[in-house]
Amino acid sequence: MSDLTATISRIAPGGRIGILGGGQLGRMLAMSAAELGLRTHVYCPDLDAPAMDTASRSTRAGYDDAEALARFADSVDVVTYEFENVPAETARILAEHAPIRPGVRALATAQDRLLEKNFLTSCGIPIAPFADITGVNDLTAAMGRIGAPAILKTRRMGYDGKGQIKLDEAGESESAFSSLGKVPCVLEGFIPFELEISVVVARGLDGAVAAFDPVENVHKNHILDRSFAPAFIPAALAGEARAIATKIVIELDYVGVMGVEMFLLPESAKTSRLLVNEIAPRVHNSGHWTMDACAVSQFEQHIRAICGWPLGDPARHSDAVMTNLIGAEANDWLALASRPGLSVHLYGKSEARDGRKMGHVNELFPLGKRP
Amino acid sequence: MSDLTATISRIAPGGRIGILGGGQLGRMLAMSAAELGLRTHVYCPDLDAPAMDTASRSTRAGYDDAEALARFADSVDVVTYEFENVPAETARILAEHAPIRPGVRALATAQDRLLEKNFLTSCGIPIAPFADITGVNDLTAAMGRIGAPAILKTRRMGYDGKGQIKLDEAGESESAFSSLGKVPCVLEGFIPFELEISVVVARGLDGAVAAFDPVENVHKNHILDRSFAPAFIPAALAGEARAIATKIVIELDYVGVMGVEMFLLPESAKTSRLLVNEIAPRVHNSGHWTMDACAVSQFEQHIRAICGWPLGDPARHSDAVMTNLIGAEANDWLALASRPGLSVHLYGKSEARDGRKMGHVNELFPLGKRP
Repeated sequence: MSDLTATISRIAPGGRIGILGGGQLGRMLAMSAAELGLRTHVYCPDLDAPAMDTASRSTRAGYDDAEALARFADSVDVVTYEFENVPAETARILAEHAPIRPGVRALATAQDRLLEKNFLTSCGIPIAPFADITGVNDLTAAMGRIGAPAILKTRRMGYDGKGQIKLDEAGESESAFSSLGKVPCVLEGFIPFELEISVVVARGLDGAVAAFDPVENVHKNHILDRSFAPAFIPAALAGEARAIATKIVIELDYVGVMGVEMFLLPESAKTSRLLVNEIAPRVHNSGHWTMDACAVSQFEQHIRAICGWPLGDPARHSDAVMTNLIGAEANDWLALASRPGLSVHLYGKSEARDGRKMGHVNELFPLGKRP
Repeated sequence: MSDLTATISRIAPGGRIGILGGGQLGRMLAMSAAELGLRTHVYCPDLDAPAMDTASRSTRAGYDDAEALARFADSVDVVTYEFENVPAETARILAEHAPIRPGVRALATAQDRLLEKNFLTSCGIPIAPFADITGVNDLTAAMGRIGAPAILKTRRMGYDGKGQIKLDEAGESESAFSSLGKVPCVLEGFIPFELEISVVVARGLDGAVAAFDPVENVHKNHILDRSFAPAFIPAALAGEARAIATKIVIELDYVGVMGVEMFLLPESAKTSRLLVNEIAPRVHNSGHWTMDACAVSQFEQHIRAICGWPLGDPARHSDAVMTNLIGAEANDWLALASRPGLSVHLYGKSEARDGRKMGHVNELFPLGKRP
């Protein structure tokens, strides 16, 4: 490894990181970069974006503004992003001016459910049965093969339950496809899972991989509500989950942090008990617990990876429960700030709209003591 | 207390904090404010000040620029400072436009060694014998009373061993007083201490007090080198140290975080074993370990206090050893970043001058396991 690392062009303290996207993930990435003495430049079309408040510098311009994108990329040593729906053309322009990490291939794969599922299948990673849907005829045929219930999802731009619809019987196919706008979709077999878990994994520029402990995720209204670190699953399954996440980042030649969501099937399952649900080529909401329970958070880990630094040790020093503050839940900030042992993180968003992620809290417990 | 807290004007998320001074303490205060969804405005005369890089907004102007000071204070909900040598006139101007916390009295007391010692004495807090020195005659008389060795310190502007000189015999008085520029001084009896400890204590706007565990400090070339959390001292002494720090913030009607440095005398001492060395009306280098070993760091604690939020629980979840990176020591960033379990904090300073604080690292250990 010393031969390999010797050839890495590392971004030293004082270097500049470009962050595409101005949400809370960009905000926390910028703070972690500052902890390492690195500067950040956030690029985002929105007024009053949360990340602009913690970045060293910011540019407000559209993702289709080629000139602004080029100037932005020229001003930094590396470009990263906090959301997977970066348009391909945007990524192409940026990549002409600065290294973009994670790379363009990871982005293209993770922003299209069909490409992602084909990629995972090609790696031999177990996933739910799926079908490519370009029209109602495909859907009818696929419902026959996969069976109800199933979930129809748009190939692109889905998140937090948006762009998807559950089909309880084949007869609902036409209305479901219409309600999603007749855009290209995938149909997924519905998985009666026991737990949803995720692994936040990182791969460095030197090829080293480090995975945080798998956590159990609980959703509310299709939005992540809580993550329990660690997931209470047998050590062998936790190891398998880590191995799956590791395989994915290696096969994609990935650099940075990735969130890998998985379903854990009941013990009675005939197949592998772990199926990958989806991957996110970025820091992940289910990794926010690492901010307070590990020496190096997922945000710092991502910054280390894309700057060619050694990855941090992903070991937990504490157990943790992360709870998202969605919409009006953030109005309870005073009560939350009063609870001993709770770390409060607020994203500086002025308007607490329904379903909007406003902040999160981490509660720490001694190792082995989480509820 | 509910009656009292009901009358507190709290600065809610989205509110603005003015920070006077642009060094690493301001930088870390700004990051902690952002974690709570608060905005910051840093005021500093220096170009390329570390705190400007993490603040929402910054003003570069002199501490004697009355107009810029007024505009700055008008733009924020509260003003705080990261260094105790804020000129009295600067503080007066700011206080006309915004609450200044900690208050003007704390600032005046802590920036003048004579006022500080008189204040501590008036509270019945044990300190080393001292004398007010305005001329060589005072010094000769004081050396006769206090005895050699003793330390002559300027009343104002001393830090990191600057502005002080050790007198091993009375005959050195004249040259020592001259070498310090014949400015007003205090003479302190030299204390043959066993340990130097410190307590980082906070007092909220509601009068609540919370003290982090006392730590042991080790200096190198008069600059803090390492802090060991917790200090290995008997529980009764740790309680006494906390009680002393608590008494000081109450007597000063203080709001914010304060560092209280103390000497621990050998068991054979005839007096109290704890003497207060000095107080710092701000976040303190010996509290940097709290960033990684407590749910709420000293920086967040200070922000909470000055914004009228409830203080965080100062309990440790881990033991910690903090090591400063002074000057060229920060060039080892890559080796430090490679050590598992180490949290690296760099201040974004471009030039690693001798004696300059460039960053620090925290190493965590399970409770009760620090070396």
